[in-house]
Parts: sequence; C-alpha cells; structure tokens
Amino acid sequence: MSSFLVNVLPKAHTYARSKCSIYGVNCMKAYSTNWEPKEPIVRTKTIPGPKSAELKSQLSAVQSTGTVQFFADYEKSTGNYIFDVDGNALLDVYTQISSVPLGYNHPRLLNIFKDENNLKTLINRPALGVFPGKEWPDKLNSILLNIAPKGLNKITTMMCGSCSNENAFKSIFLWYQTKIRGEKGFTAEEMNSCMINMPPGAPNLSILSFKGAFHGRTLGALSTTHSKYIHKIDVPSFDWPIASFPQYKYPLEDNVAENKKEDEKCLSEVQSLIEEYKKKDKPVAGVIVEPIQSEGGDNEASPAFFRALQKICKSNGVALLIDEVQTGGGSTGKFWCHEHFNLEYPPDVVTFSKKLQLGGYFHNDDFAPKEPYRIFNTWMGDPGKVILLEEILKVIKDEKLMANVEAAGKVLKQGLLNLESEFPQLLNSTRGRGTFLAVNCSNSKVRDSIVSTLRLNGIQTGGCGEVSIRFRPALIFKEAHANIVLDRFRNVLRSL
Amino acid sequence: MSSFLVNVLPKAHTYARSKCSIYGVNCMKAYSTNWEPKEPIVRTKTIPGPKSAELKSQLSAVQSTGTVQFFADYEKSTGNYIFDVDGNALLDVYTQISSVPLGYNHPRLLNIFKDENNLKTLINRPALGVFPGKEWPDKLNSILLNIAPKGLNKITTMMCGSCSNENAFKSIFLWYQTKIRGEKGFTAEEMNSCMINMPPGAPNLSILSFKGAFHGRTLGALSTTHSKYIHKIDVPSFDWPIASFPQYKYPLEDNVAENKKEDEKCLSEVQSLIEEYKKKDKPVAGVIVEPIQSEGGDNEASPAFFRALQKICKSNGVALLIDEVQTGGGSTGKFWCHEHFNLEYPPDVVTFSKKLQLGGYFHNDDFAPKEPYRIFNTWMGDPGKVILLEEILKVIKDEKLMANVEAAGKVLKQGLLNLESEFPQLLNSTRGRGTFLAVNCSNSKVRDSIVSTLRLNGIQTGGCGEVSIRFRPALIFKEAHANIVLDRFRNVLRSL
Repeated sequence: MSSFLVNVLPKAHTYARSKCSIYGVNCMKAYSTNWEPKEPIVRTKTIPGPKSAELKSQLSAVQSTGTVQFFADYEKSTGNYIFDVDGNALLDVYTQISSVPLGYNHPRLLNIFKDENNLKTLINRPALGVFPGKEWPDKLNSILLNIAPKGLNKITTMMCGSCSNENAFKSIFLWYQTKIRGEKGFTAEEMNSCMINMPPGAPNLSILSFKGAFHGRTLGALSTTHSKYIHKIDVPSFDWPIASFPQYKYPLEDNVAENKKEDEKCLSEVQSLIEEYKKKDKPVAGVIVEPIQSEGGDNEASPAFFRALQKICKSNGVALLIDEVQTGGGSTGKFWCHEHFNLEYPPDVVTFSKKLQLGGYFHNDDFAPKEPYRIFNTWMGDPGKVILLEEILKVIKDEKLMANVEAAGKVLKQGLLNLESEFPQLLNSTRGRGTFLAVNCSNSKVRDSIVSTLRLNGIQTGGCGEVSIRFRPALIFKEAHANIVLDRFRNVLRSL
Repeated sequence: MSSFLVNVLPKAHTYARSKCSIYGVNCMKAYSTNWEPKEPIVRTKTIPGPKSAELKSQLSAVQSTGTVQFFADYEKSTGNYIFDVDGNALLDVYTQISSVPLGYNHPRLLNIFKDENNLKTLINRPALGVFPGKEWPDKLNSILLNIAPKGLNKITTMMCGSCSNENAFKSIFLWYQTKIRGEKGFTAEEMNSCMINMPPGAPNLSILSFKGAFHGRTLGALSTTHSKYIHKIDVPSFDWPIASFPQYKYPLEDNVAENKKEDEKCLSEVQSLIEEYKKKDKPVAGVIVEPIQSEGGDNEASPAFFRALQKICKSNGVALLIDEVQTGGGSTGKFWCHEHFNLEYPPDVVTFSKKLQLGGYFHNDDFAPKEPYRIFNTWMGDPGKVILLEEILKVIKDEKLMANVEAAGKVLKQGLLNLESEFPQLLNSTRGRGTFLAVNCSNSKVRDSIVSTLRLNGIQTGGCGEVSIRFRPALIFKEAHANIVLDRFRNVLRSL
C-alpha cells in the first residue's frame, strides 16, 4: 500500500477559521453551512494512527472491534470533513454509511435544542402509539407527510432500517391475509395456532427478495438479505424465494440489448418463483427491492425493470416494498430514488431510515391494520429525531441542496468516467445517480488497496459488493469537494 | 363506568410552583427533583377529553390511532405527573410502558444538552461500529459496564428491545455453531447455502421461550412472544419450542407445595422440549425468559425456578438469555431483577432497553463473535441516549432512588394487599418486587373498568395479561404518591 501523499501537507497546517479558504474562496462563503479546512489533512503514517490504536485496544476490552476504522473527534469534525483523534481530517464521502445528510456540526442543527420545547421533546420520550405529544399530528403532517412518496398518505414511524423493514413485512402479511379473509373475523383455530407459532394463525407466507440485496440483519430482514455470507452464516432463516437481480454491462449505452435481456431473465425468475412458492404452499405476499442495491455492490436496474416488476406484483396480488433506507433522502438527485422510475402506480410500501434520522415506512390505507396493537411497539420512533429531520429538511430547501447534489454529482461522475478511461486496467463500470455513485475495480484486492490508500490520502470512501467503491457524500458536498476527491483518486491510481 | 371523582378538584386549581404542596410539605423539598401538583387534576368528563379527541381525528388521517389513549402535553408534564392537552394531570404509574426512569422534565436531564460537547454528540450520530467517537470506550466503561450484571464483561449496544433480543439470538446461534465447528473454518457448503437461506449455513436452530412471554415484535423476537394473539396473528413464525411458565397461587406463603409442583412441571417441560427439538433436528441453542413476565400478566417465577432453569441450560449446552427490557433499571428494588434469584452462574446474555434509553445486551467473551461484521448494523445504538443514561444513573445515586423504590414499593404493595382483603370479590394475587407490582381483578371486564375509572380519577395505570393491572411508576415515585394511588383506588373499588 502506498502512502506517498502522507505528510505532503505542512505539519503545522492551521485550519483556523480565518485562514480557511478553498481555491481562494473564503470558506464561510463557499459553504454557507460551516467552515472547513481547505483540503484534507493527514498527519499519521497509518490510519488508524497511534491514538486511535490506543482507544481501540481500550474498547476491545468491552466490545468486538474488528470493524472499527478509527476513532473520530466529533467535536472538531466539520462540514464534509471528519476529524480523527490523531489530527487527521478526512474528506468524508462515506458519511457513516450514508447516514449524515448535512455533514458534521451543521450550525443550524447545533441550534435546535437551544429551544426549550425541542429540548423537552428530546428528554420526555413517549410511547408514541399510546400517549403522543400534542404536536405529533402536526409534526407528522408538516415533516413526514411533506416528503411522502407520491400516492402514499400514511406513515408508520420506527427506529431503524431493520425495524422498518420487519414491520413493513408484517403490514404486508396482514394485508395479504385480510384480502383472503374478507369481512370474516379471525377463527378460533387461527387465534390459537398463532400462539404456538403454527399455521393457519402464523401462516407460511413469504417475502421475495433479490440476490445481492441488503435489507437489514434482524431475523426477518436477514432472510431477505443476500449480500455477503458473513452477514448470514450460522443464523436460522425463513425459506423465502430469492430472484436474480440484473447484472448490467457498462457503459449502459453500449450494452442496451444485452442489459434488456438481463432484465427479462430476472423478471421471468420473479414470476416463476411466485408460482413455485405458491405450489410449495409458501405464497409470496410481498416483493422487497432496493432502487440501487447498495451494500451488495451498487447494482442498478433500469426504470423499465422496476415498472415491469410492479406489473408482475400487481398481476399476482403481491405487494411491492421499495427499500429506500440507503437511497432515500436526496443523494440520488431526487428525494426518493424510485421517483426516477416513473412507476405506473405508487409502490405499496416505502421504507426509510439513515439520513432521515429515524426509521419508518410510507404506505396507503390498505396497509394500515384496522385492529389496534397489530403494528406496535413501545416507542414507535423517536420525536427527538423528527425535530432533527425537520431542520434538515429546512436546510435542504434553504440551501438548495437538491440542486447542489445534481451539480456536484455531475462533476464527480464525469470525473470517475475520465479516471475510468485513464486507468481502464484498474477501473470500470462507473454508475449511479446524483452523488450516489460507484465504480468497480479490477478485483477486490485492488479495491481494498484503493480504499485504504485513499484514506491515507485524506479521502474516506467505502467498499461495497466484491469489487466496488461507493461514494456517499453528504448533501452539502460541492463541486470543489468533488475535484479534491478526483485529484487524489488520480494520484492513488497512478501510484498502484 | 363511574366518574364520581371527576371534578372533585377545584376547577381553578393552581399548580404554580409557590402554591404547590403535598401534605403540608413544600413540593420543592418533598421532591428533590421537580415540582408537582399536590394531587391529580381531572378536568374533563372523559379521557380522552375534547382536545385529545380532536387531535386523534387529525392523527387518524395519517396513521392508525386505535391504541392512542390521549395526547400529552410534555412541556407541562412534571415529575410523576403526565399532563394532557385538556388540562388533566394524571399521576402516572405506567410511565410510557415502564420506560421513564425519572419522571417528566427532570431538571438535570433538561440541563445536559446545554453542554456543547453533549450537544455535538447528539447531532453527529456515528456508525458506532466503524467510526466511534473518542469518548466511546470511556462512556461504555464508566456508564454501561458500571451497571453490567455481575460476571458479564462485554456490552453490545442496540436501539430498542426487539433489536436487542434479535441480536442476542444471533450471538447465541453463532456461539452454538462455533462450539460445534471448533477451530475449523466455515465450509464452502455453509458459505453458499446460507446465501439462499438454507442449512447447513443457515442452520435449523431454535430458541426456547415460554407461554405468556413477550420479547418483541420483529419476526425473530415475535417467534418467542406468546402474550396475546393480536400480536402474532397473520405473521409467519419460526417453529420454535414453547414451554409452560409457572402459574402460581397467591399468597405464595399459603401455597408453597402447590407452587413448587408447578415449577417442577414447567421445568420438566423445558427438558422434554430440548430433547424433542433435538430429535426434530431443530436443536435449542438458547432459552429466553423474563424475570417477571410483564406484558403477559406480571407472571412471576421463584428464584428456585430460575436456578433450576439455569441448571437445565448448562447441562444441555444451551445459553440462558434473561430479557430485562421491562424489569431492568431499578424498579424491582435491584438494578437487574435477576439479582433477586441468586443464580449459581451469571446468565449468558442479559438484554435491556426502555428505562435505559437505548437497547443492548451484556454478555461474556464467548458471545462476542471473533469475525467482524457478524453482529453489526449502521448505528449500533445511539451515543445521544447514552448521555441521557449517564445523567439518569447519577441522579439514581445522588437521590438514593433505589432506597426510595424499596420504601415506596413497600407502601404500595402493602396497600394493595389491604385493598385485596377489603375487596376480595374484586382483587386478588397482589405480587411483585419494589414498585414493579401487579394485582389481579376478578375478570377482564372488571380490570378494564378499573383501569379506565382510575384514569378518570387521576391515576394512569396499565393492564397486562387477561385480568391484571400493572404498576410501573418512575423511580422518583414516593410513599406520598403511593398513598394517593391507594386512596383513589379504594374509592374506585367502592364505586363498582
């Protein structure tokens, strides 16, 4: 691994506010959000540096630490830059696995809990399903329904992505059984058998998912996750159907016919599996799909694929759940990635989390159970997170961050395409929407080496799938940041 | 339903700080925490009152509201009193399903986010497994390990109770398979089969649970939940074994022999099921049990039962998971309810959530997977909640709240026993530890009527099981509050 760029920056680089500038523009002006160093700062020969290593050994006394990359200094981190405990400041285009919308320490987020009412919402956490606060209906309306995917008028709030998918599955199972049951009530046999985990009360229904998918790690969600064996091995699973997800050849414009064939092959698998699992007496109640398979390798499918998938769902009486946990929140250039697909109907259920601070799902009335306590838990989300989301959405609007994503994404994507042409033996298959981008490396060793060398050169990215690098910058990531990433990426590629 | 006590309080009751007193003692002195009204205030003839009803109809446009009891005013709520939007102030002995440790708007919790560093921790939420903050090892040590059940030295943080149980199950499955596998690595067959949800990679292991148990509602956790059919019906489930949980006759001292027999019957069922599921090729990897079955009806089992259960687990090579999601945090008179049992060994895994603000589980090294990314998710808990927990634990210590729980619990329990003698046709089977108490009613209609009449008389309790009322006051609930509850309870019983 090369570390040729380590220490190219002056040791005493000062990132005091007054000295901060980027390409001659004062940072306070360039970023209406907050000040940033003018470029990444790397002070240690390895990352994790010595202080991170020391903290890691402390942490390992009480917890597994095999996944820890370094210890961050969240007091100092600012804007697009994550600072670590060793004085490094990395331009963060991974943003806590795509979960930071406005970068670090955005001044407007720092302000909201200075409001006494917001503070009270934060510390008096209710059981929202039973004793919601007086402002809850208004908050749901003005914040969450305001960003609802078109055609969906109901919101169920949760805590995280896995919970959201698990509860969305349950909503789908309830919907499916209610269709069959009609106006009849539950039978005694159903009420009794479900208590001992047996059909007909606990019916053998299934959720169809795709190879390469990631939908979370709790036992129901994990049964639909198929990204890496290490996520699944030794854990019992539901026998639910798994279809192939399109594997495209890039550039798309040169491989139209082949990729279309790929779509058709996968869609026909979906139809066959629905039929097969009906015969196996494990009928498919719902299909879950990511608009872009993220953890599994940033695998995209065409709008046509999603439209056809929805048709298959409709014609088989199966619900379509679009999992926007990683794609939702604006970084694909639209607030919800599936808006790019021009679906004929709204999806039945859309789940979210990460950038939105809390989890949950949008749906319509058919997926809201009539009987109480069927979709329920103690907290049902977290109003303290909704207050953060409220301000985040205001900042997105005020700072025109959706337009920013489009502009910065264009620069980053074109730059990656250029690098791909310059280094065809190392890079291929640049793809993505907005700033939600990825590129493939020639093999996984090269990928891992690029990711760690980029880090040593001040750029924090993340891997996904077998050979991909994913870019997940915050919404405040600008063209100037894209140019820093591209310059350093080029240097790293040259060094390999 | 009687509402004879409604409006017995002066309409213009003022709960200004200066006028607040309870039994002649100034509130600021009686409650070192914060001021409270001197007694409950009920201003509407129904609860929900008209303003709650209006908000409920607004909320029902965007969300199911079948479980909503009323809308609270969390700005006004204070100490043990929850205020609603109609001007009612209820003495809250249910506390958001047992999840509020210090009552409402505790001044010390209101203060902590005035600290800039705490505020930054709150708004810069990391992916804790990858980029923890510099203070994380210290926070885990000084806060969470400080309350670790004796003998457990590892902590895995999560978001909520269901997630905690789901991930604890996974830790148990991994431990179980690792015991079998020994030093050998994963086989290709295991790595491939798990990706399509099939054994041997996704093995047919099971978790044994008890009838009446509640462990959460995501699909894995729900397979171990057996409290009410409405939680489970129409949702697919794992075929996992379910043993009977002791059903005692009260008072315990008069039914020793019979209850001992009940223990033996249930324990022998556990042993038989472990053998049966081994033969069925779905070996039991773990047993999950609540120290007091809460949602299922506040069903207790004896310390001897838990000690024998642990013996059965040990002799069968099965892990024992104690679910302290509802019982943990001090209200049983010990921080962890299982401390009352004098177990021979530490439990293998202890899960928590609710009063502790975030979820998670304690365990030892055997249950910490060696390989990275096996127990993992984006957030892995929430450092903002740990900051709340830190202050909560300090307040528990500074205000000697564990001693308070014991004193207030004694008064409340004795008072319930007295009411049971006064109204033997209505009440029986008073039980519980600390302020974590319950009493049975003659039938579920009487129970429901008592709960709603108590509410109309200023006392917020909750039902559990078929016929029980549960008491889950905050840790700041004092003898004087217990006396208010008992007085009003007596009046309600008289009115029936």
